[in-house]
Amino acid sequence: MIHVLKIGGEILDDEKLLSAFINDFIGIEGKKVIVHGGGKMATALSKKLNIETELIDGRRVTNAEMLRIAVMTYSGWISKHVTALLQAKYCNALSLCGADGNLLRATKRPVTPIDFGFVGDLDADGINVSLIQSLLNQDIVPVISAITHDGKGNLLNTNADTIAAAVAAALSKHQPTSLLLGFAKTGVLLNADDDTTLVPHLTQSVHEKMKSQGMIHSGILPKISAAFYAAKLGVAPVYIGNAIHCQNILNGNAAATLVTASI
Amino acid sequence: MIHVLKIGGEILDDEKLLSAFINDFIGIEGKKVIVHGGGKMATALSKKLNIETELIDGRRVTNAEMLRIAVMTYSGWISKHVTALLQAKYCNALSLCGADGNLLRATKRPVTPIDFGFVGDLDADGINVSLIQSLLNQDIVPVISAITHDGKGNLLNTNADTIAAAVAAALSKHQPTSLLLGFAKTGVLLNADDDTTLVPHLTQSVHEKMKSQGMIHSGILPKISAAFYAAKLGVAPVYIGNAIHCQNILNGNAAATLVTASI
Repeated sequence: MIHVLKIGGEILDDEKLLSAFINDFIGIEGKKVIVHGGGKMATALSKKLNIETELIDGRRVTNAEMLRIAVMTYSGWISKHVTALLQAKYCNALSLCGADGNLLRATKRPVTPIDFGFVGDLDADGINVSLIQSLLNQDIVPVISAITHDGKGNLLNTNADTIAAAVAAALSKHQPTSLLLGFAKTGVLLNADDDTTLVPHLTQSVHEKMKSQGMIHSGILPKISAAFYAAKLGVAPVYIGNAIHCQNILNGNAAATLVTASI
Repeated sequence: MIHVLKIGGEILDDEKLLSAFINDFIGIEGKKVIVHGGGKMATALSKKLNIETELIDGRRVTNAEMLRIAVMTYSGWISKHVTALLQAKYCNALSLCGADGNLLRATKRPVTPIDFGFVGDLDADGINVSLIQSLLNQDIVPVISAITHDGKGNLLNTNADTIAAAVAAALSKHQPTSLLLGFAKTGVLLNADDDTTLVPHLTQSVHEKMKSQGMIHSGILPKISAAFYAAKLGVAPVYIGNAIHCQNILNGNAAATLVTASI
């Protein structure tokens, strides 16, 4: 079994949570992959550098300066810091962005109708599965940052949940693969501020019902879409849950939202 | 034959020179490794962020903030940018810092008599040769940034020339290996501003003579030390020369300084 774990910004921004995640993560048996994005570090750095965040229709535009900051923080500090922490626990890890070994190939989003800048959508066969498998077979944990490339020399920003789901789906074609989209909450919640309102099992009909009743806050929608995407392509189990309890979630001993493709 | 090429800041800071280097580099036959440091980008970023460079006895101190900037620029933007450019030329490359796959193990320099901060000296057996060989055997060019780790979770700053020489020396124990310490000059020059004053062959006695006559400017001394270190351990040929002519230098068709361990 291969376990793909995505960790979000709340974990990466907090050394105590990150340490808790790593201590739990190293105990997971089997082959493991980490996917991570950024966090507040990129936003804080761009603020300090007076780079203004450009928004079109409420969506962030990744200009050349913002891309550079994303690459520096995601693929630079965060990826290397996580890797060094894993090494300190005798867990051999190796960090990669999409350009490394042609791991994640994407296409820059068309500039019309809206130019979102250096943002990439993963190509259909854009994941270099054999590179991941080769690392896993050497007992190395791939630590993948959410930066892709287009094969033309451009690095691109791509959503980390999407990458985690696509990596898990690609791996699952060859070997049973699980996915945990981890953040600092217990899972999908009816009330985003109340961990006791956990939805333990999210099926498509439950999701539709919740959406129609306005019970899902918009922030978690991309995570849910990514989870369903992976589940539909054969990844199982798929969880949305608290990354610092990853080991027990995967063992079925901690609460989280199980996402299945069933109706 | 394995070729280890170190590229310096002058090349990395200038997209035209970097592009010229890459166009030349991809034509080199055999297995290849790139080692790189930073450049003006780290200095510029720390200035913009108002991080003051602390100097003790004229030597830079790497505090926690400076280390973070070094990791972000060297292992982040520069390493990933170079890798994406190589991929665009159908040259499969994969960037690594010292923590990745436990590639470069170092020990933090003692804090007495002077605390230089997060600076590491490579351990005697600190280079993971088999990881480099494994990548080379998969026709992947390792792109190594000059950041090491101590196995205790700390990333450390280490001189890129030193790393390039040590990597070449470690590889040469198993297979013939060359080293080019590349920058934007033709080689070791009698007059640092005049490319026609090239020293074509630097032996130990020539070096001693030049030093005693004050004919070597201090900036190139670490490069020369690294070159002699590698040559003494069996790396051959060892060159100091212009990175954008790397292919012809290694073919013996372009001027550069050949460094040999001979007296």
